[in-house]
Amino acid sequence: MSITDEVVLANQKYAATFNLGGLAKPPARKLAVLACMDARLTVEQFLGLKTGEAHIIRNAGGIATEDALRSLIISHELLGTQEFIVINHTDCGMLTFKDDELLQKLEERTGTTTIAPVHFHPFKNVEDNVRQQVARIKSHPYVREVPVRGFVYDVKSGRLAEVTDAHPRAAQRTA
Amino acid sequence: MSITDEVVLANQKYAATFNLGGLAKPPARKLAVLACMDARLTVEQFLGLKTGEAHIIRNAGGIATEDALRSLIISHELLGTQEFIVINHTDCGMLTFKDDELLQKLEERTGTTTIAPVHFHPFKNVEDNVRQQVARIKSHPYVREVPVRGFVYDVKSGRLAEVTDAHPRAAQRTA
Repeated sequence: MSITDEVVLANQKYAATFNLGGLAKPPARKLAVLACMDARLTVEQFLGLKTGEAHIIRNAGGIATEDALRSLIISHELLGTQEFIVINHTDCGMLTFKDDELLQKLEERTGTTTIAPVHFHPFKNVEDNVRQQVARIKSHPYVREVPVRGFVYDVKSGRLAEVTDAHPRAAQRTA
Repeated sequence: MSITDEVVLANQKYAATFNLGGLAKPPARKLAVLACMDARLTVEQFLGLKTGEAHIIRNAGGIATEDALRSLIISHELLGTQEFIVINHTDCGMLTFKDDELLQKLEERTGTTTIAPVHFHPFKNVEDNVRQQVARIKSHPYVREVPVRGFVYDVKSGRLAEVTDAHPRAAQRTA
Protein backbone atom coordinates (compact mmCIF):
# COMPACT_ATOMS: atom_id res chain seq x y z
CA MET A 1 0.00 0.00 0.00
CA SER A 2 1.38 3.44 -0.97
CA ILE A 3 1.57 6.31 1.55
CA THR A 4 -1.10 8.03 -0.54
CA ASP A 5 -3.41 5.03 -0.07
CA GLU A 6 -2.68 5.12 3.66
CA VAL A 7 -3.59 8.80 4.05
CA VAL A 8 -6.76 8.34 1.97
CA LEU A 9 -7.74 5.58 4.38
CA ALA A 10 -6.92 7.85 7.34
CA ASN A 11 -9.14 10.51 5.76
CA GLN A 12 -12.09 8.11 5.61
CA LYS A 13 -11.78 7.60 9.36
CA TYR A 14 -11.48 11.38 9.89
CA ALA A 15 -14.60 12.06 7.78
CA ALA A 16 -16.64 9.45 9.68
CA THR A 17 -16.79 11.74 12.74
CA PHE A 18 -16.45 15.09 10.92
CA ASN A 19 -18.63 17.86 12.38
CA LEU A 20 -17.09 21.08 10.96
CA GLY A 21 -19.23 21.30 7.82
CA GLY A 22 -20.68 24.66 8.80
CA LEU A 23 -17.49 26.74 8.77
CA ALA A 24 -17.44 29.93 6.70
CA LYS A 25 -14.94 30.60 3.92
CA PRO A 26 -13.28 33.73 5.46
CA PRO A 27 -10.79 32.81 8.22
CA ALA A 28 -12.56 33.34 11.57
CA ARG A 29 -9.54 34.99 13.22
CA LYS A 30 -8.64 37.11 10.15
CA LEU A 31 -5.08 35.82 10.16
CA ALA A 32 -2.79 34.57 7.37
CA VAL A 33 0.42 32.68 8.14
CA LEU A 34 3.32 32.22 5.70
CA ALA A 35 5.56 29.36 6.87
CA CYS A 36 8.06 26.80 5.63
CA MET A 37 6.83 23.46 4.25
CA ASP A 38 9.11 21.58 6.70
CA ALA A 39 7.50 18.38 8.03
CA ARG A 40 8.39 19.32 11.63
CA LEU A 41 6.15 22.40 11.48
CA THR A 42 2.55 21.52 12.22
CA VAL A 43 1.67 25.19 11.99
CA GLU A 44 -1.95 25.19 13.19
CA GLN A 45 -0.99 23.03 16.17
CA PHE A 46 1.95 25.07 17.44
CA LEU A 47 -0.04 28.31 17.03
CA GLY A 48 -3.16 26.94 18.74
CA LEU A 49 -5.23 27.52 15.58
CA LYS A 50 -8.41 25.55 15.01
CA THR A 51 -9.81 24.51 11.64
CA GLY A 52 -11.40 27.56 9.96
CA GLU A 53 -9.41 30.20 11.79
CA ALA A 54 -6.49 31.18 9.52
CA HIS A 55 -5.09 30.93 6.01
CA ILE A 56 -1.93 28.85 5.95
CA ILE A 57 0.51 29.50 3.10
CA ARG A 58 3.59 27.28 2.96
CA ASN A 59 6.55 26.85 0.65
CA ALA A 60 10.20 25.80 0.84
CA GLY A 61 11.75 28.27 3.27
CA GLY A 62 8.68 30.35 4.06
CA ILE A 63 9.68 32.84 1.36
CA ALA A 64 7.56 35.83 0.29
CA THR A 65 7.81 34.81 -3.36
CA GLU A 66 5.52 36.34 -5.97
CA ASP A 67 3.28 33.32 -5.45
CA ALA A 68 3.13 33.78 -1.67
CA LEU A 69 2.29 37.46 -2.27
CA ARG A 70 -0.47 36.32 -4.67
CA SER A 71 -1.91 34.22 -1.84
CA LEU A 72 -1.56 37.00 0.77
CA ILE A 73 -3.24 39.54 -1.53
CA ILE A 74 -6.18 37.17 -2.15
CA SER A 75 -6.32 36.43 1.60
CA HIS A 76 -6.54 40.10 2.55
CA GLU A 77 -8.47 41.57 -0.38
CA LEU A 78 -11.06 38.86 -0.95
CA LEU A 79 -11.23 37.01 2.36
CA GLY A 80 -10.64 39.77 4.88
CA THR A 81 -7.50 38.76 6.79
CA GLN A 82 -6.04 41.68 8.79
CA GLU A 83 -2.77 40.29 10.19
CA PHE A 84 0.11 38.39 8.58
CA ILE A 85 2.75 36.23 10.29
CA VAL A 86 5.95 34.93 8.65
CA ILE A 87 7.52 31.82 10.20
CA ASN A 88 10.92 30.37 9.34
CA HIS A 89 12.62 27.79 11.55
CA THR A 90 15.91 26.46 12.90
CA ASP A 91 17.70 23.61 11.02
CA CYS A 92 15.98 24.58 7.74
CA GLY A 93 16.93 22.67 4.58
CA MET A 94 17.31 26.02 2.81
CA LEU A 95 20.48 26.63 4.86
CA THR A 96 22.16 23.57 3.32
CA PHE A 97 22.66 24.32 -0.38
CA LYS A 98 23.32 26.95 -3.04
CA ASP A 99 21.25 27.64 -6.16
CA ASP A 100 24.01 26.78 -8.61
CA GLU A 101 24.89 23.51 -6.83
CA LEU A 102 21.27 22.33 -6.86
CA LEU A 103 20.76 23.31 -10.50
CA GLN A 104 23.93 21.45 -11.50
CA LYS A 105 22.78 18.36 -9.58
CA LEU A 106 19.34 18.45 -11.24
CA GLU A 107 20.84 18.96 -14.69
CA GLU A 108 23.27 16.09 -14.25
CA ARG A 109 20.64 13.70 -12.91
CA THR A 110 17.94 14.46 -15.47
CA GLY A 111 19.98 15.46 -18.49
CA THR A 112 17.77 18.53 -18.76
CA THR A 113 19.32 21.99 -18.79
CA THR A 114 18.01 24.78 -16.61
CA ILE A 115 14.31 25.45 -16.83
CA ALA A 116 12.02 27.27 -14.41
CA PRO A 117 12.41 27.53 -11.47
CA VAL A 118 15.99 28.77 -11.66
CA HIS A 119 16.01 30.30 -8.17
CA PHE A 120 15.43 28.05 -5.19
CA HIS A 121 15.79 30.81 -2.57
CA PRO A 122 18.27 29.18 -0.18
CA PHE A 123 19.53 31.50 2.58
CA LYS A 124 22.46 31.73 5.02
CA ASN A 125 20.88 33.26 8.13
CA VAL A 126 17.35 32.52 9.23
CA GLU A 127 16.72 35.78 11.16
CA ASP A 128 17.97 37.86 8.23
CA ASN A 129 15.79 35.83 5.91
CA VAL A 130 12.70 36.47 8.04
CA ARG A 131 13.46 40.23 8.06
CA GLN A 132 13.77 40.19 4.28
CA GLN A 133 10.43 38.39 3.78
CA VAL A 134 8.62 40.69 6.22
CA ALA A 135 10.08 43.73 4.44
CA ARG A 136 9.03 42.33 1.06
CA ILE A 137 5.43 41.90 2.20
CA LYS A 138 5.33 45.31 3.92
CA SER A 139 6.52 47.02 0.76
CA HIS A 140 3.84 45.52 -1.49
CA PRO A 141 1.30 48.24 -2.39
CA TYR A 142 -1.63 45.79 -2.36
CA VAL A 143 -1.16 44.70 1.27
CA ARG A 144 0.88 47.50 2.84
CA GLU A 145 -1.87 48.29 5.37
CA VAL A 146 -1.64 44.80 6.91
CA PRO A 147 0.58 44.42 10.02
CA VAL A 148 3.28 41.76 9.48
CA ARG A 149 5.43 40.15 12.16
CA GLY A 150 8.19 37.59 11.69
CA PHE A 151 9.27 34.63 13.83
CA VAL A 152 11.74 31.76 13.98
CA TYR A 153 10.31 28.43 15.19
CA ASP A 154 12.81 26.30 17.11
CA VAL A 155 12.34 22.68 16.01
CA LYS A 156 14.13 21.48 19.17
CA SER A 157 11.95 23.36 21.67
CA GLY A 158 8.70 24.00 19.76
CA ARG A 159 9.03 27.66 20.68
CA LEU A 160 8.60 30.79 18.51
CA ALA A 161 11.04 33.68 18.84
CA GLU A 162 10.09 37.00 17.31
CA VAL A 163 12.49 38.61 14.85
CA THR A 164 12.54 42.33 15.43
CA ASP A 165 12.86 44.92 12.70
CA ALA A 166 16.21 46.21 13.91
CA HIS A 167 19.16 44.40 12.41
CA PRO A 168 21.53 43.16 15.17
CA ARG A 169 24.57 44.69 13.45
CA ALA A 170 22.75 48.01 13.06
CA ALA A 171 21.89 47.90 16.77
CA GLN A 172 25.52 47.17 17.59
CA ARG A 173 26.69 50.18 15.61
CA THR A 174 24.26 52.41 17.54
CA ALA A 175 25.41 51.08 20.93
CA MET B 1 -4.44 42.01 22.20
CA SER B 2 -3.79 41.25 18.51
CA ILE B 3 -4.42 37.81 17.05
CA THR B 4 -0.65 37.55 16.57
CA ASP B 5 -0.13 38.14 20.32
CA GLU B 6 -2.77 35.49 21.03
CA VAL B 7 -1.11 32.82 18.88
CA VAL B 8 2.33 33.65 20.33
CA LEU B 9 0.83 33.06 23.78
CA ALA B 10 -0.75 29.80 22.55
CA ASN B 11 2.69 28.76 21.26
CA GLN B 12 4.24 29.28 24.71
CA LYS B 13 1.71 26.81 26.13
CA TYR B 14 2.41 24.39 23.27
CA ALA B 15 6.18 24.61 23.83
CA ALA B 16 5.82 23.96 27.57
CA THR B 17 4.93 20.30 26.90
CA PHE B 18 6.80 19.91 23.58
CA ASN B 19 8.54 16.53 23.19
CA LEU B 20 9.20 16.30 19.43
CA GLY B 21 12.67 17.87 19.45
CA GLY B 22 14.30 14.73 18.05
CA LEU B 23 12.57 14.61 14.65
CA ALA B 24 14.74 14.40 11.53
CA LYS B 25 14.63 16.93 8.70
CA PRO B 26 13.51 14.52 5.89
CA PRO B 27 9.75 13.77 6.06
CA ALA B 28 9.38 10.36 7.76
CA ARG B 29 6.69 9.14 5.33
CA LYS B 30 8.44 10.56 2.23
CA LEU B 31 5.29 12.44 1.19
CA ALA B 32 4.74 16.00 -0.07
CA VAL B 33 1.25 17.52 -0.18
CA LEU B 34 0.29 20.57 -2.27
CA ALA B 35 -3.01 22.02 -0.99
CA CYS B 36 -5.03 25.23 -0.86
CA MET B 37 -4.40 27.77 1.92
CA ASP B 38 -8.11 27.71 2.87
CA ALA B 39 -8.69 27.99 6.62
CA ARG B 40 -11.08 25.02 6.59
CA LEU B 41 -8.30 22.65 5.46
CA THR B 42 -6.26 21.43 8.41
CA VAL B 43 -4.28 19.25 6.05
CA GLU B 44 -2.22 17.17 8.47
CA GLN B 45 -5.33 16.43 10.55
CA PHE B 46 -7.63 15.26 7.75
CA LEU B 47 -4.82 13.11 6.28
CA GLY B 48 -3.87 11.58 9.63
CA LEU B 49 -0.32 12.97 9.34
CA LYS B 50 1.78 13.49 12.43
CA THR B 51 4.41 16.19 12.92
CA GLY B 52 7.53 15.23 10.97
CA GLU B 53 5.86 12.97 8.42
CA ALA B 54 5.24 15.09 5.29
CA HIS B 55 6.08 18.34 3.57
CA ILE B 56 3.03 20.59 3.34
CA ILE B 57 3.00 23.18 0.55
CA ARG B 58 0.02 25.54 0.43
CA ASN B 59 -1.06 28.51 -1.66
CA ALA B 60 -4.27 30.13 -2.86
CA GLY B 61 -6.03 27.39 -4.83
CA GLY B 62 -3.48 24.61 -4.42
CA ILE B 63 -1.90 25.58 -7.75
CA ALA B 64 1.28 24.03 -9.16
CA THR B 65 2.83 27.45 -9.70
CA GLU B 66 6.53 27.82 -10.42
CA ASP B 67 6.96 28.41 -6.68
CA ALA B 68 5.09 25.23 -5.73
CA LEU B 69 7.26 23.34 -8.24
CA ARG B 70 10.34 24.90 -6.60
CA SER B 71 9.16 23.48 -3.28
CA LEU B 72 8.33 20.04 -4.74
CA ILE B 73 11.72 19.81 -6.45
CA ILE B 74 13.54 20.66 -3.19
CA SER B 75 11.28 18.20 -1.35
CA HIS B 76 12.11 15.33 -3.70
CA GLU B 77 15.70 16.09 -4.67
CA LEU B 78 17.11 17.23 -1.33
CA LEU B 79 14.78 15.69 1.23
CA GLY B 80 13.79 12.42 -0.37
CA THR B 81 10.00 12.55 -0.77
CA GLN B 82 8.72 9.85 -3.15
CA GLU B 83 4.98 10.63 -3.51
CA PHE B 84 3.09 13.86 -4.21
CA ILE B 85 -0.57 14.62 -3.51
CA VAL B 86 -2.51 17.65 -4.86
CA ILE B 87 -5.59 18.74 -2.89
CA ASN B 88 -8.15 21.32 -3.99
CA HIS B 89 -11.53 21.65 -2.26
CA THR B 90 -15.21 22.46 -2.68
CA ASP B 91 -16.42 26.05 -2.14
CA CYS B 92 -12.97 27.45 -2.98
CA GLY B 93 -12.52 31.22 -3.09
CA MET B 94 -10.72 30.79 -6.42
CA LEU B 95 -14.08 29.92 -8.01
CA THR B 96 -15.48 33.37 -7.13
CA PHE B 97 -13.52 35.91 -9.19
CA LYS B 98 -11.67 36.67 -12.41
CA ASP B 99 -8.11 37.98 -12.77
CA ASP B 100 -9.10 41.21 -14.48
CA GLU B 101 -11.82 41.99 -11.93
CA LEU B 102 -9.46 41.51 -8.99
CA LEU B 103 -6.69 43.55 -10.62
CA GLN B 104 -9.13 46.38 -11.33
CA LYS B 105 -10.35 46.31 -7.72
CA LEU B 106 -6.78 46.40 -6.37
CA GLU B 107 -5.79 49.20 -8.72
CA GLU B 108 -8.81 51.29 -7.79
CA ARG B 109 -8.36 50.78 -4.04
CA THR B 110 -4.62 51.40 -3.93
CA GLY B 111 -4.13 53.82 -6.81
CA THR B 112 -1.31 51.55 -7.98
CA THR B 113 -1.35 50.14 -11.48
CA THR B 114 -0.68 46.50 -12.17
CA ILE B 115 2.43 45.08 -10.60
CA ALA B 116 3.41 41.47 -9.95
CA PRO B 117 1.58 39.21 -9.40
CA VAL B 118 -0.62 39.81 -12.42
CA HIS B 119 -2.13 36.32 -12.47
CA PHE B 120 -4.10 35.14 -9.47
CA HIS B 121 -4.97 31.69 -10.91
CA PRO B 122 -8.74 31.58 -10.33
CA PHE B 123 -10.50 28.61 -11.89
CA LYS B 124 -14.00 27.57 -12.94
CA ASN B 125 -14.07 23.85 -12.20
CA VAL B 126 -12.26 22.28 -9.29
CA GLU B 127 -11.83 18.79 -10.79
CA ASP B 128 -10.45 20.23 -14.03
CA ASN B 129 -8.13 22.43 -11.99
CA VAL B 130 -6.79 19.44 -10.05
CA ARG B 131 -6.16 17.56 -13.32
CA GLN B 132 -4.26 20.54 -14.69
CA GLN B 133 -2.03 20.86 -11.59
CA VAL B 134 -1.30 17.11 -11.53
CA ALA B 135 -0.41 17.23 -15.25
CA ARG B 136 1.83 20.24 -14.67
CA ILE B 137 3.78 18.45 -11.94
CA LYS B 138 3.99 15.19 -13.91
CA SER B 139 5.43 17.00 -16.91
CA HIS B 140 8.24 18.70 -14.98
CA PRO B 141 11.57 17.02 -15.90
CA TYR B 142 12.99 17.42 -12.39
CA VAL B 143 10.22 15.43 -10.63
CA ARG B 144 8.71 13.31 -13.41
CA GLU B 145 9.63 10.05 -11.63
CA VAL B 146 7.44 10.92 -8.62
CA PRO B 147 3.87 9.50 -8.59
CA VAL B 148 1.27 12.29 -8.27
CA ARG B 149 -2.41 11.86 -7.40
CA GLY B 150 -5.08 14.57 -7.17
CA PHE B 151 -8.04 14.95 -4.82
CA VAL B 152 -10.94 17.27 -3.99
CA TYR B 153 -11.61 17.77 -0.27
CA ASP B 154 -15.28 18.34 0.55
CA VAL B 155 -15.47 21.08 3.21
CA LYS B 156 -19.01 19.92 4.15
CA SER B 157 -18.15 16.25 4.76
CA GLY B 158 -14.40 16.30 5.49
CA ARG B 159 -13.97 13.63 2.81
CA LEU B 160 -11.41 13.37 -0.01
CA ALA B 161 -12.54 12.28 -3.48
CA GLU B 162 -9.86 11.25 -5.97
CA VAL B 163 -9.79 13.00 -9.33
CA THR B 164 -8.96 10.46 -11.97
CA ASP B 165 -6.84 11.14 -15.03
CA ALA B 166 -9.69 10.57 -17.45
CA HIS B 167 -11.75 13.64 -18.19
CA PRO B 168 -15.49 12.94 -17.53
CA ARG B 169 -16.49 14.30 -20.94
CA ALA B 170 -13.84 12.14 -22.63
CA ALA B 171 -15.23 9.12 -20.77
CA GLN B 172 -18.74 10.05 -21.88
CA ARG B 173 -17.66 10.23 -25.50
CA THR B 174 -16.20 6.73 -25.24
CA ALA B 175 -19.39 5.32 -23.68
